[in-house]
Amino acid sequence: MEHMPEASRDRHSPFPPDAPTRADAKAMDARDPLAGARDQFRLPQGLIYLDGNSLGALPRRAPDRVFEVMRLQWGEDLIAGWTRHGWMDLPLRVGSKIGELVGAPDGTLVACDTTTLNLYKLLAAALAERPDRRTVVSERGNFPTDLYVAEGLFRTLGQGHRLKLADRAEDVVAAIDTDTAAVMLTQVDYRTGALHDMDAVTKAAHDKGALTIWDLAHSAGALPVDLAGTDADYAVGCGYKYLNGGPGAPAFLYVARRLQASFVPALQGWLGHARPFDFDPAYVPAEGIGRTIVSTPSVLSLAALEAGVDTLRSWRMADIRAKSEALTEIFRILIDPLAERLGLTRASPRDPALRGSQICYRHPEGYAIIQALVERRIVGDFRAPDILRFGFAPLYLRHVDAWDAAANLVDVIETRAYDDPRLRVRARVT
Amino acid sequence: MEHMPEASRDRHSPFPPDAPTRADAKAMDARDPLAGARDQFRLPQGLIYLDGNSLGALPRRAPDRVFEVMRLQWGEDLIAGWTRHGWMDLPLRVGSKIGELVGAPDGTLVACDTTTLNLYKLLAAALAERPDRRTVVSERGNFPTDLYVAEGLFRTLGQGHRLKLADRAEDVVAAIDTDTAAVMLTQVDYRTGALHDMDAVTKAAHDKGALTIWDLAHSAGALPVDLAGTDADYAVGCGYKYLNGGPGAPAFLYVARRLQASFVPALQGWLGHARPFDFDPAYVPAEGIGRTIVSTPSVLSLAALEAGVDTLRSWRMADIRAKSEALTEIFRILIDPLAERLGLTRASPRDPALRGSQICYRHPEGYAIIQALVERRIVGDFRAPDILRFGFAPLYLRHVDAWDAAANLVDVIETRAYDDPRLRVRARVT
Repeated sequence: MEHMPEASRDRHSPFPPDAPTRADAKAMDARDPLAGARDQFRLPQGLIYLDGNSLGALPRRAPDRVFEVMRLQWGEDLIAGWTRHGWMDLPLRVGSKIGELVGAPDGTLVACDTTTLNLYKLLAAALAERPDRRTVVSERGNFPTDLYVAEGLFRTLGQGHRLKLADRAEDVVAAIDTDTAAVMLTQVDYRTGALHDMDAVTKAAHDKGALTIWDLAHSAGALPVDLAGTDADYAVGCGYKYLNGGPGAPAFLYVARRLQASFVPALQGWLGHARPFDFDPAYVPAEGIGRTIVSTPSVLSLAALEAGVDTLRSWRMADIRAKSEALTEIFRILIDPLAERLGLTRASPRDPALRGSQICYRHPEGYAIIQALVERRIVGDFRAPDILRFGFAPLYLRHVDAWDAAANLVDVIETRAYDDPRLRVRARVT
Repeated sequence: MEHMPEASRDRHSPFPPDAPTRADAKAMDARDPLAGARDQFRLPQGLIYLDGNSLGALPRRAPDRVFEVMRLQWGEDLIAGWTRHGWMDLPLRVGSKIGELVGAPDGTLVACDTTTLNLYKLLAAALAERPDRRTVVSERGNFPTDLYVAEGLFRTLGQGHRLKLADRAEDVVAAIDTDTAAVMLTQVDYRTGALHDMDAVTKAAHDKGALTIWDLAHSAGALPVDLAGTDADYAVGCGYKYLNGGPGAPAFLYVARRLQASFVPALQGWLGHARPFDFDPAYVPAEGIGRTIVSTPSVLSLAALEAGVDTLRSWRMADIRAKSEALTEIFRILIDPLAERLGLTRASPRDPALRGSQICYRHPEGYAIIQALVERRIVGDFRAPDILRFGFAPLYLRHVDAWDAAANLVDVIETRAYDDPRLRVRARVT
């Protein structure tokens, strides 16, 4: 399909006559307000990359930006770079820019450390805010590291805290009670893309006196989030997915302003001190969000993250979300009617308003199918035990990519192209 | 001094006739086995950089290495980079290379996170190893973040742990008793450069059943350390000082092999799981050092750190230490005889074997003197309340730099060049 001449592709369409055509998809691209965004990324020729929710693509400006920080700032100014180039302020500066994308006012969000470490900081602070409560509500299908970090903290505390895990997203609210210190959820389910209703859950938590900790790993940069507007208490998120900060980019952390003065940092480091350069043997936490910072900022990786975030900020979040819904919806509209025949079961919600920027199907041969698609240079990913996950980063994917990906999925299954022992050897995938 | 013609410099020597001459220093450079190392760094023309113990210089190979990781690995291979380019193994791979510099066998040292966060991990594990003990011995003059992180952990634990701080380095051993869970020390004092005797302290700790946690921030890459040979239990260190990993580079962490199986991670993240890609809701710690890793590796900054470490590894540690001692010794031999007249008091040990790669003096006008030297493009740093700190990174400094720095220090004080209100305005220094 990939190497087929354009004109002939429609004649080979595997879809019924009433389905959207490849020409329809191209027409949508022609009127796409984000059409110019693709050129701000370096993408390999001919690749359809549907895994930007795992690792975002390389923003065109990022390598030069990092090179400049290394050669001109670090190389020429050495230690003076900390003041001359504002390195010390990077967590707040990049944090403010991310804040614009997720509704966090200035001074409530910082970029630093990793999602897991930031979650530890917030969960420890939340438990300190609710010292008489012993449960943290989450869901069994939450991204495992979120559950691990909670269990590790609970064991360290040794005070009998425990996770109360809802089996299904819709059971979360019922699990919240007056023993709930915090509700810790990932807004977009990493496997199915299902969206939690942040407003409703936050309200339900507050009604019982519980705090909320939102993991925005698959939200930030992909859909509008309004942390302040929904009255969220705490949040974390990932820098290397839709923020395109590069592999292992720094994460971010949000603390509502009303909770900052009472925020007790479990991880006390010198950069979170009110006066770090006094080298005071006694820790005095900085005012505001500054106390959530622990260590010297990771300047090179924050520079790359800033380039990713700057790339996003040139575009309107409403357009990003509209295109995201259109992309996953093209794919769904094409696949759904054939799903039963192909052995696919949709794992994502039908309504695009209820899912993130991904669409997922289950298939018993999911792993091999994803591998067969990779051979055609269509990169999605597989999540055990049987989920085919297709992420659509709206900034650099075209509507025609969604059409081609769907057509190839049908073709791979119909021609049993996945039925190849080579494709069943599980490599260590990410 | 900086712009004086070379031939005339000796005629303006501020030192007595029997002191080493600038020509002597140049002769030492001529027979320096590390002379070729300087060219492996990009250093600004005419700058004498004596702050490599705060932020190391830029290795010549680093920008291209990072650029390649961004453009070719991330840009071309995207998610496949994790396997194709061994990104996932970076903490262990870079860790092994650092391990060669500090006597840590393969599989006992990883590069990840920050010094402070790694210290938290180790201290939490040490307290879990010694559940019946309640004190951690350190010294009042330890780098403050080390003390902050301990206090933060103790408060989080809520079990009555406390720091027992020796007022002087020589009082540490006497402070260790059977209630001591761990002895936590920075090997090289960040202000004075004084070296702890790792062998003696470790033995004293073990005699009382206590564990040791060594902070190698100012040691790694500057002097030979033999973690396994001294039977150290745990260690952390910094990537952006003598390892030249760049501003805010990842740090490292060491756990003696015999303590790995019982290591209880307080910070449980998905990368520390035995099978991270199973996305198992239950945490099962990886075997060995892997369980100390929490999060997705920070690939760009680990690539820069690897370039720094690779640069170091081309040279013999014995030569590095010998030159380090020679550099600080030139400076000391020149300054000591004039110190009283200049109002300087040496803060570092007289014997080079007892200090790290820095030499420090106290002066009531220390801050302004450091600023006046910066105006002459000689960059040392100031540590409150009155310490002038001169770090000598042996790979890129010449003996003649030590001579010139000393001559300028004398000149700045004798001519009262520091006595300028501009130089007293404290900027936010690092």
